[in-house]
Amino acid sequence: MNERFELVEQALNKMLEEKKYAFLRDLLVTLNPADIADLFTSIDEKNLPLLFRLLPKELAAETFVEMEAEEQELLIRTFSDNELKEIVDELYVDDAAALVEEMPANVVKRILRQADPVMRSSINQILRYPENSAGSLMTTEYVSLRVDMTVEESILRIRRQGVDKETIYTCYVTEGRKLVGIVTVKDLLLAQDDETPIADIMQTNLISVNTHTDQEEVALMFSRYDFLALPVVDMENRMVGIITVDDAIDVMQDEATEDMAMMGGILPSEKTYIRSSPWDLFKSRIPWLLLLMVSATFTGMIISSFESALATHAALIAFIPMLMGTGGNSGSQSSVTIIRALSLEELHLGDLARVIWKEIRTAVLCGLALSVVCYLKIWLVDGLLLGNTDISPLINLVVCLALFATVLIAKVVGAILPLLAKALKLDPAVMASPFITSIVDALSLLVYFLFASMLLNL
Amino acid sequence: MNERFELVEQALNKMLEEKKYAFLRDLLVTLNPADIADLFTSIDEKNLPLLFRLLPKELAAETFVEMEAEEQELLIRTFSDNELKEIVDELYVDDAAALVEEMPANVVKRILRQADPVMRSSINQILRYPENSAGSLMTTEYVSLRVDMTVEESILRIRRQGVDKETIYTCYVTEGRKLVGIVTVKDLLLAQDDETPIADIMQTNLISVNTHTDQEEVALMFSRYDFLALPVVDMENRMVGIITVDDAIDVMQDEATEDMAMMGGILPSEKTYIRSSPWDLFKSRIPWLLLLMVSATFTGMIISSFESALATHAALIAFIPMLMGTGGNSGSQSSVTIIRALSLEELHLGDLARVIWKEIRTAVLCGLALSVVCYLKIWLVDGLLLGNTDISPLINLVVCLALFATVLIAKVVGAILPLLAKALKLDPAVMASPFITSIVDALSLLVYFLFASMLLNL
Repeated sequence: MNERFELVEQALNKMLEEKKYAFLRDLLVTLNPADIADLFTSIDEKNLPLLFRLLPKELAAETFVEMEAEEQELLIRTFSDNELKEIVDELYVDDAAALVEEMPANVVKRILRQADPVMRSSINQILRYPENSAGSLMTTEYVSLRVDMTVEESILRIRRQGVDKETIYTCYVTEGRKLVGIVTVKDLLLAQDDETPIADIMQTNLISVNTHTDQEEVALMFSRYDFLALPVVDMENRMVGIITVDDAIDVMQDEATEDMAMMGGILPSEKTYIRSSPWDLFKSRIPWLLLLMVSATFTGMIISSFESALATHAALIAFIPMLMGTGGNSGSQSSVTIIRALSLEELHLGDLARVIWKEIRTAVLCGLALSVVCYLKIWLVDGLLLGNTDISPLINLVVCLALFATVLIAKVVGAILPLLAKALKLDPAVMASPFITSIVDALSLLVYFLFASMLLNL
Repeated sequence: MNERFELVEQALNKMLEEKKYAFLRDLLVTLNPADIADLFTSIDEKNLPLLFRLLPKELAAETFVEMEAEEQELLIRTFSDNELKEIVDELYVDDAAALVEEMPANVVKRILRQADPVMRSSINQILRYPENSAGSLMTTEYVSLRVDMTVEESILRIRRQGVDKETIYTCYVTEGRKLVGIVTVKDLLLAQDDETPIADIMQTNLISVNTHTDQEEVALMFSRYDFLALPVVDMENRMVGIITVDDAIDVMQDEATEDMAMMGGILPSEKTYIRSSPWDLFKSRIPWLLLLMVSATFTGMIISSFESALATHAALIAFIPMLMGTGGNSGSQSSVTIIRALSLEELHLGDLARVIWKEIRTAVLCGLALSVVCYLKIWLVDGLLLGNTDISPLINLVVCLALFATVLIAKVVGAILPLLAKALKLDPAVMASPFITSIVDALSLLVYFLFASMLLNL
């Protein structure tokens, strides 16, 4: 959203130059924390601590959370212990845990020393869960109610405890640490009678996740059930925390970005493009490029072994790129569709037979249409229009039959491989276009030369 | 999530068979609307109206919203006018508008006849906005407060009006229909004094969208600012509705699915894979396949024009797939990265020069690594190991130089085209892998034959 802020950025830099700090403060407090954090990335690093100190305490903490790790670290190094404590006290536990995870060891030590004992133990609890699990994503700060409370008592409790909770809108009714019900603030406010026991209005059809549930599944549950928060329970079914919708949204975006990267043959990275150096980009791109280049040895060997045939029918060579290209595109269409449907849990392993049957029928339709157009194109454009007499009707037939077979193979391979990955508990996105293209390249050449050998008596 | 429900599905079918409707009802009311809707897709269509009528009114409406258009239509056709009115009365306005948009004209007429006048006019208002705009996504039901109210008066108003509002947690303070502030229920509940005027506690740094803002931008604002709801204003800056986070999440998922489809050379469709017939899949896949197949005519022509050169150095043919494949992969790595960064607004048009410079440096690193490995591979594996004596060191050099140049071209083309699309106000995802691969295929062949002509004196 840089464009919107260009004017603000100019004003800010001018005020900084002229040392008009009161004006600066007045400007900053009108902005949203995410926007301030964004502005801070574009100013000179040496001005960052000064600007940050202009922010009122709460806004400072909210802005701090939105900043990138590098700038957070830079700031912490300039903080006194007292300043650090003030920020840490304002953080929600899940944000504090995320911060600790990103910082180098010596900074982590300082942070934990400034955190109060309750927060320190909560941070440690969250960090014990595996990365990308519900436990590592949750916050331990939520409003819990007792099952014997009335509506009025519940509202009172929210008023007393709510200020430190990330959300107050969904409250969790527990009995001996076990989750027994959910009450929303809407239920409480709209209850007819203040004396109603919350046991009468709480929802008891509970949907929760386990601390070890994968974050991708967590995000899907938010999109399916339209929750604002989701309770997290441990192996003994005790309530340990909640995940809020804003964190689920971040997971959704990150998972989609990761899937797209993998579909493009890139190792996923947590850095944004702007923050990645050419060396970072190189490291995430070269592995697949090398692997796929070396695997092209097979296509090379296939061509070499048909070299003499190609020498007698040189016209065949010209169609190799078209066949391989169409095969690659057909395969990646299927794999991309299947990978996404698996990610959104619209498809499951049990659908394998159904998927293959659907892809075969689709491939027949696509293959027929392409072959007919291809035959006409070669006959009319290459033959009559461009006067290329090398291409006999028989060669044309070989090309079009190979094209049909290639599309069929490509679509089936493109559909099966992501499902196979899923069965092997791999991320289906590893079976993405570049990988499938390499396999289909080799297969399409084999089919091509097979038809050529048969029909042209090579 | 089919697996989880297999047992429930079996129980349900058994109860249906044995006509145990009371048990059926007891089973259904323990489930979440999204899950019931899911179950309904797997039962016999003729049982659907019966099962649906077992649901209590509110759950019935919530389930109805989660169902697919085909089943909604089937149900409405079996509804009496009274039954239809009951459901329509329970719907939120945005869901009703979405329903009206999906149904055929005669069903729409019936729905609008049963809607009360206020809802009818709201539905019509929402439907007037362009598809995929904030206006078409919003609901007109929100809690509005007057600026002269106190905390206590505000809470009272929420209690009176809240039941029909999609969210009560963010309330909008208006003055002569203009939005002047936002108060959350958290602010209200945590206010120290019931007599505090809301003017003192409302947030006045307002972020809103216009009715014509694109839904993709709306979704991004939710992920950036962690909102639960976002106000929508018209051209005269009057408040007309709100968008809630659950709808923003759906947009996010849909936009990511659409981008992935386009990256795979597929025309986006609103149907899920499971609901698409082979004919549907054919229609969304064949356009790009045809276009790309025909565009491969150029690569064919390039090869044809070098046919005699290839005849004298047949070894050159074997490396065509490797060169084209590596070029395609290099290009799609860049384009996928840039397309995603543009979607997330991490990158902007103004970054063009920076992007090209970064891609050039990355391409040099990748190109160098690949060329060196390729040279060694051809020398050691193809030459010494496989004893292929056709490949002279000079041919090896031609291949590796062409490889380096191809990677460089591919990465720059892959980065520029999405930005170009953005500049032309097209969706950058149209410039995705298949398209870029076709361009890079032709360019890489040209470069290959150019180096071959120069170094081998063809």
